[in-house]
Amino acid sequence: MDRNIEVFIACDKNYDESKIVLFGAPFDSTSSYRPGSRFAPKEIRANSYGLETYSPYQGRDLADSFVFDAGDLELRFGAPGPAVSEIQAFTEKILDDGKTPFMIGGEHLVTLGAFRAAHKKYPDIHVVHFDAHTDLRDDYLGEKLSHATVIRRVWELAGDNKIYQFGIRSGEGHEFEFAEKHMYLNKYNLSNFGNCIDALRGKPVYFTIDLDILDPSVFPGTGTPEAGGVSFLDLLDAVIKTECLNIVGLDVNELCPVYDQSGVSTATACKIIRELLLTRQ
Amino acid sequence: MDRNIEVFIACDKNYDESKIVLFGAPFDSTSSYRPGSRFAPKEIRANSYGLETYSPYQGRDLADSFVFDAGDLELRFGAPGPAVSEIQAFTEKILDDGKTPFMIGGEHLVTLGAFRAAHKKYPDIHVVHFDAHTDLRDDYLGEKLSHATVIRRVWELAGDNKIYQFGIRSGEGHEFEFAEKHMYLNKYNLSNFGNCIDALRGKPVYFTIDLDILDPSVFPGTGTPEAGGVSFLDLLDAVIKTECLNIVGLDVNELCPVYDQSGVSTATACKIIRELLLTRQ
Amino acid sequence: MDRNIEVFIACDKNYDESKIVLFGAPFDSTSSYRPGSRFAPKEIRANSYGLETYSPYQGRDLADSFVFDAGDLELRFGAPGPAVSEIQAFTEKILDDGKTPFMIGGEHLVTLGAFRAAHKKYPDIHVVHFDAHTDLRDDYLGEKLSHATVIRRVWELAGDNKIYQFGIRSGEGHEFEFAEKHMYLNKYNLSNFGNCIDALRGKPVYFTIDLDILDPSVFPGTGTPEAGGVSFLDLLDAVIKTECLNIVGLDVNELCPVYDQSGVSTATACKIIRELLLTRQ
Amino acid sequence: MDRNIEVFIACDKNYDESKIVLFGAPFDSTSSYRPGSRFAPKEIRANSYGLETYSPYQGRDLADSFVFDAGDLELRFGAPGPAVSEIQAFTEKILDDGKTPFMIGGEHLVTLGAFRAAHKKYPDIHVVHFDAHTDLRDDYLGEKLSHATVIRRVWELAGDNKIYQFGIRSGEGHEFEFAEKHMYLNKYNLSNFGNCIDALRGKPVYFTIDLDILDPSVFPGTGTPEAGGVSFLDLLDAVIKTECLNIVGLDVNELCPVYDQSGVSTATACKIIRELLLTRQ
Amino acid sequence: MDRNIEVFIACDKNYDESKIVLFGAPFDSTSSYRPGSRFAPKEIRANSYGLETYSPYQGRDLADSFVFDAGDLELRFGAPGPAVSEIQAFTEKILDDGKTPFMIGGEHLVTLGAFRAAHKKYPDIHVVHFDAHTDLRDDYLGEKLSHATVIRRVWELAGDNKIYQFGIRSGEGHEFEFAEKHMYLNKYNLSNFGNCIDALRGKPVYFTIDLDILDPSVFPGTGTPEAGGVSFLDLLDAVIKTECLNIVGLDVNELCPVYDQSGVSTATACKIIRELLLTRQ
Amino acid sequence: MDRNIEVFIACDKNYDESKIVLFGAPFDSTSSYRPGSRFAPKEIRANSYGLETYSPYQGRDLADSFVFDAGDLELRFGAPGPAVSEIQAFTEKILDDGKTPFMIGGEHLVTLGAFRAAHKKYPDIHVVHFDAHTDLRDDYLGEKLSHATVIRRVWELAGDNKIYQFGIRSGEGHEFEFAEKHMYLNKYNLSNFGNCIDALRGKPVYFTIDLDILDPSVFPGTGTPEAGGVSFLDLLDAVIKTECLNIVGLDVNELCPVYDQSGVSTATACKIIRELLLTRQ
Repeated sequence: MDRNIEVFIACDKNYDESKIVLFGAPFDSTSSYRPGSRFAPKEIRANSYGLETYSPYQGRDLADSFVFDAGDLELRFGAPGPAVSEIQAFTEKILDDGKTPFMIGGEHLVTLGAFRAAHKKYPDIHVVHFDAHTDLRDDYLGEKLSHATVIRRVWELAGDNKIYQFGIRSGEGHEFEFAEKHMYLNKYNLSNFGNCIDALRGKPVYFTIDLDILDPSVFPGTGTPEAGGVSFLDLLDAVIKTECLNIVGLDVNELCPVYDQSGVSTATACKIIRELLLTRQ
Repeated sequence: MDRNIEVFIACDKNYDESKIVLFGAPFDSTSSYRPGSRFAPKEIRANSYGLETYSPYQGRDLADSFVFDAGDLELRFGAPGPAVSEIQAFTEKILDDGKTPFMIGGEHLVTLGAFRAAHKKYPDIHVVHFDAHTDLRDDYLGEKLSHATVIRRVWELAGDNKIYQFGIRSGEGHEFEFAEKHMYLNKYNLSNFGNCIDALRGKPVYFTIDLDILDPSVFPGTGTPEAGGVSFLDLLDAVIKTECLNIVGLDVNELCPVYDQSGVSTATACKIIRELLLTRQ
Repeated sequence: MDRNIEVFIACDKNYDESKIVLFGAPFDSTSSYRPGSRFAPKEIRANSYGLETYSPYQGRDLADSFVFDAGDLELRFGAPGPAVSEIQAFTEKILDDGKTPFMIGGEHLVTLGAFRAAHKKYPDIHVVHFDAHTDLRDDYLGEKLSHATVIRRVWELAGDNKIYQFGIRSGEGHEFEFAEKHMYLNKYNLSNFGNCIDALRGKPVYFTIDLDILDPSVFPGTGTPEAGGVSFLDLLDAVIKTECLNIVGLDVNELCPVYDQSGVSTATACKIIRELLLTRQ
Repeated sequence: MDRNIEVFIACDKNYDESKIVLFGAPFDSTSSYRPGSRFAPKEIRANSYGLETYSPYQGRDLADSFVFDAGDLELRFGAPGPAVSEIQAFTEKILDDGKTPFMIGGEHLVTLGAFRAAHKKYPDIHVVHFDAHTDLRDDYLGEKLSHATVIRRVWELAGDNKIYQFGIRSGEGHEFEFAEKHMYLNKYNLSNFGNCIDALRGKPVYFTIDLDILDPSVFPGTGTPEAGGVSFLDLLDAVIKTECLNIVGLDVNELCPVYDQSGVSTATACKIIRELLLTRQ
Repeated sequence: MDRNIEVFIACDKNYDESKIVLFGAPFDSTSSYRPGSRFAPKEIRANSYGLETYSPYQGRDLADSFVFDAGDLELRFGAPGPAVSEIQAFTEKILDDGKTPFMIGGEHLVTLGAFRAAHKKYPDIHVVHFDAHTDLRDDYLGEKLSHATVIRRVWELAGDNKIYQFGIRSGEGHEFEFAEKHMYLNKYNLSNFGNCIDALRGKPVYFTIDLDILDPSVFPGTGTPEAGGVSFLDLLDAVIKTECLNIVGLDVNELCPVYDQSGVSTATACKIIRELLLTRQ
Repeated sequence: MDRNIEVFIACDKNYDESKIVLFGAPFDSTSSYRPGSRFAPKEIRANSYGLETYSPYQGRDLADSFVFDAGDLELRFGAPGPAVSEIQAFTEKILDDGKTPFMIGGEHLVTLGAFRAAHKKYPDIHVVHFDAHTDLRDDYLGEKLSHATVIRRVWELAGDNKIYQFGIRSGEGHEFEFAEKHMYLNKYNLSNFGNCIDALRGKPVYFTIDLDILDPSVFPGTGTPEAGGVSFLDLLDAVIKTECLNIVGLDVNELCPVYDQSGVSTATACKIIRELLLTRQ
């Protein structure tokens, strides 16, 4: 008798036949305001069953995708260094096997682990970064590894003019100055995303979505909600546009389910994940 | 001494003098994801007192309407067939008395009972269907009566080219194909609603609103929230446009109050109901 | 690469080596008041990780048990008859294979399916029934299959003087009269449970726990909370006492997670399930 | 066609045939901590349908009672004086007609209105007061009419040695001194309630229950929760003991539903009200 | 050793050096629907730490502002007259010292106290009023002081053609008529706000924001939510436009935190307050 | 003009005149299940105003105590080592000044910092430990500093037979064995606490309360709720008994407010803190 295993809806292929490997990184120890994103992967998996597998936006069905849902990593709370390393090791294995890693956070620091692995394989990698926050501090109260410093750490590896930020509407003054100097900063919205697509065509890209880029009206369930974000339809439109990019790794993070007891934030995260998976079909 | 009876605000006319009969159909047994819409009619009635009776949008006051609030039907949970039949019988009585039935669900399956009654009296009836979901499956895990099949059942009675769908953004691939073939499918929004109004002028119309047509940002309290819906102002605009139609029966359904503890979903449902009632003044 | 599969904590044995088969029956269509128990099995599995596997009460560890967690059945909402039949078929398979079925509801009606299977194999089976409610109506608004009638249906199979009820504090007057005549009714608490244990020693027993036997202070997350229930420690004590019984099937039901956002009801259900599993070690 | 009117379950007699008149006093403007008890009467009425009408504790059925549910008074928020006067006038009418007033608050200040009416008819009336708080301040930040002063105001009318307080566990030091001098103060619990019953037999009694006498574990939904209260079973026992008293007016107050989204506090209030009504049968 | 005092983020200047004095007015006794705005000032202060002090919208940092956070007034619940007077006295002191009062409500009635003080100093003062509701009743169930009458009271002092209303979408018919006759009524949105800015340049202005002008999608945590409001970005744009006005007093009110457990409403209020403070830098 | 500063109710003495220094340690990065206890100190301070300052249990008033509320430490999330060190340094300062440190967590790991300071000054110090969990792991997934290892770390400093544990009902099997060997383990309840008091009279004692010793019925708002805990009255009784001990430092931790939206857990924590402070008067 087999188990009736719970995976993200329709992501029931086995590892060997899969093209994409979905996995959870339930870590939130450096969240500076409201922790709880560790529960995001489980909630997303459980609530993906409120979705249809078919997308009318793309005319594709997840039943036709080749996705292996690996479940969640076991990460140590309170230990950012080891957590990032474990994520890196797991992501390297996926990349080594010629598959695309798709990580569900957790807080945004988890991106560093996956990005290190991707950067190792693709040293000239570019980054598309959707977020409400710059995440560009050099340290947070002395700590180098934090959800508030993660893109600074990514920049240290990637270098200048490799990161495209969109939706940014919060940070310290010097973070905005840093962004202007070292990367492509697009404040507030996604209106300029078409140009980014054009610039990145053919290049290896890591795509990281902090879901708080969304307006808190449609995505209240996050650690640090910032009014004035993009609409779901704008985000959906940008996501679908990435179909033509050579995305070698991606993640979706910062859903904090306990802060949205309507379940809408989780349902919205599920829908974004479905659409992302379908662009990679 | 009289009771200080709780009705939907200002809907305090008696049956004989009324033009519209408002009633609740507290049934949710076939909800496939999150049940609880059975509590919608009570919550709507109780929270209608947060509203004014006057609408600045239409310049009309509910105090000048002739509405009898009949309270709620008593329906058997777990018994979709009998529930639909009881709704049908009650609606027939209202129609026989020359009044307009206005039902508050409950899940969307309740529409079938009211529609059967309306179709009996008006065999050439058209249907305006606002929803996030197609509701066009032939069965749901073998069941013919379900909130996921209700518009398929309605189509079996109404026939081809009688149903106008708006706001649809979720369903299986074959449901979208079915809709393209047998009815007027308008995906995602209400931008084309003016044409529908023109086409239906003078004809008998049944108007069913699944409130999940609204974006979950403004209407999180529903069983199956789908990001990417219409705004309240778009829905309001469409509702007001229906003033010129010959609506012979209508319903509003799928509010699930427990999933929105802010009460905004209920307040929004109340406001839509007020505006609908005022278009029928 | 293997999936990091989510099962009830430590219940990771495979089917063949297992002595107990845990499975979810996510059905709640006949709930007369507040539905939502369909989400109990998933929530219980996800939150079992807040527990230790070791019980200081019994000095045993779940890591030493032989339990296969089969996941959840897929049951049709709004169709009580087929749901009960599917549960029966699944339970029969487990019993045929010489294992003990342990079902997690769902509403209390699911017990009927599992009990039918157990009664078929053990025609002289007795029933231990923990509950706040009698569940002895002959029908509920005309329906024979309901969470309010389930013990009446069980009695029709088991016969007189086979059912031992404990904790009962709600029902219609005639239900209490029926219980006095046809079974062993123990109102309000578990003070008399030792006698029941003595009487049942050696006989095949089906054990069904409606968790609303607990006082709502410690178990608010249920469809029909009834103040005046038993404490957790009283229930724990009774559960541990069942170690010496020949229990051939058991279930735990009526957790409705959405009504307790503290998670305490789910955590309490998990702990009761752990202790039940350990008594069967 | 009649309305399917929502009254407290089974309290559907008309005024003339009734012995008890139930009514709501939705007022909470002087609540010093968390307001919201204004919504208690509506919530209690709506959720009474989760109860059975039969009480196994008393062997009686509410269907056999003669209770008229008058609905709610319309009281002005922010105007304590007029609110108390309107309650008084309404209660006088009920008493004049030879019926027993049963008021559902609202905050505790509403008791003053009903008590004034009762005291007018029965100048030698005694008071049984269940509460966590003394409510004996002379003023609250200068205001004489407050939920923190209500029993002081009652004492000014009733006089010394007429008030029996139970369950008290919060107040200022001088309030406890005042209570010791002017009334029968029973701190913390109901252990001494039997003596009170003996002392009051045959005398006219006003019975006021601030539901925060209950431990917040079973009654979290109140404005000022105080740990260390009585259990539901202790309160139930005391309520049933009042059957032999000559209660000429009674009230139940301080349920604040928004603070208990499990609904258990409301369900518990409903059950206490059912039992109180049955003692008056 | 100093206390690590909790003030609104970065508003840590002392009184003498400050230009703006922030203070809370925790009063909600006349709220006609859902009370609880008394908790707004505390929640806003506590949650301001989820914000950055820097605004990318204005390119300014709150660390460079001169704001004294005075904490909260102690107001008597149930006593609207004295509450308004205490607010007036406190505001007069601030104005006398040549500073700008910035009040955080509480319900909208608190505006009357601050406005009286401002009007005393600036008899020709104009008023900018953002709100979903007209607040123009002459009385509410007989009460002159109410959150539903506050702008009528303000008008009695300010006179005709001094008040500019924006965002209004709820009221009785006669309130809209009154507004058309005596003030500048701008229904529904802020599209006409530029003209208002032009008209008021150089004149003393009192600016009062009832946060329910925002759409409930982004601001559900309020006493009387009204669908169809303005977006956060529209409100932000209008707020920034006020930089050129001579605002002599201002307030932000009607956040009711308990009705939005996601915290988004509070976070949004914090952000609006930050931007308002920065316009006064 | 002074600020109306928010401190724990009545703890408004200045540092120099104080005997007790109250401070918050908002840290929760090693919480293994549900984080969020970082918000406990703020919530406790804000909600202490729902309490009276007078305790009828002890006949004392907090207004007569000498307590300085220092506010909260600023600790780095994700950095357990530095956080513990900062707590230690702050506690040493208080002890050096001859005052008693009273810390409000945060998760239980914070105890290590305060205990190190106390142990430095009192090398023969004993520990009274109230908790549901043993907290005796040597490491948690490799981490030495964790809320699951804190008492093991304390034991390494204090040595054998110095720690008295009460209420313990959860842990791994080997943790219970360790406790039996190295300390005084009292499982489940406080029935044996009188003996502990006798044994510790006159000796320096550090007193740490993990509030999850309480039954989750009265204290659901905690990271890892464990059914079967002690009642509030039992805990209160034990707390009052400590009056005769020489307590040189103490803490109360593991309130996680977001998981109890009724506020009862916070109110209960406030009451325990009041009673603890009064025993030190």
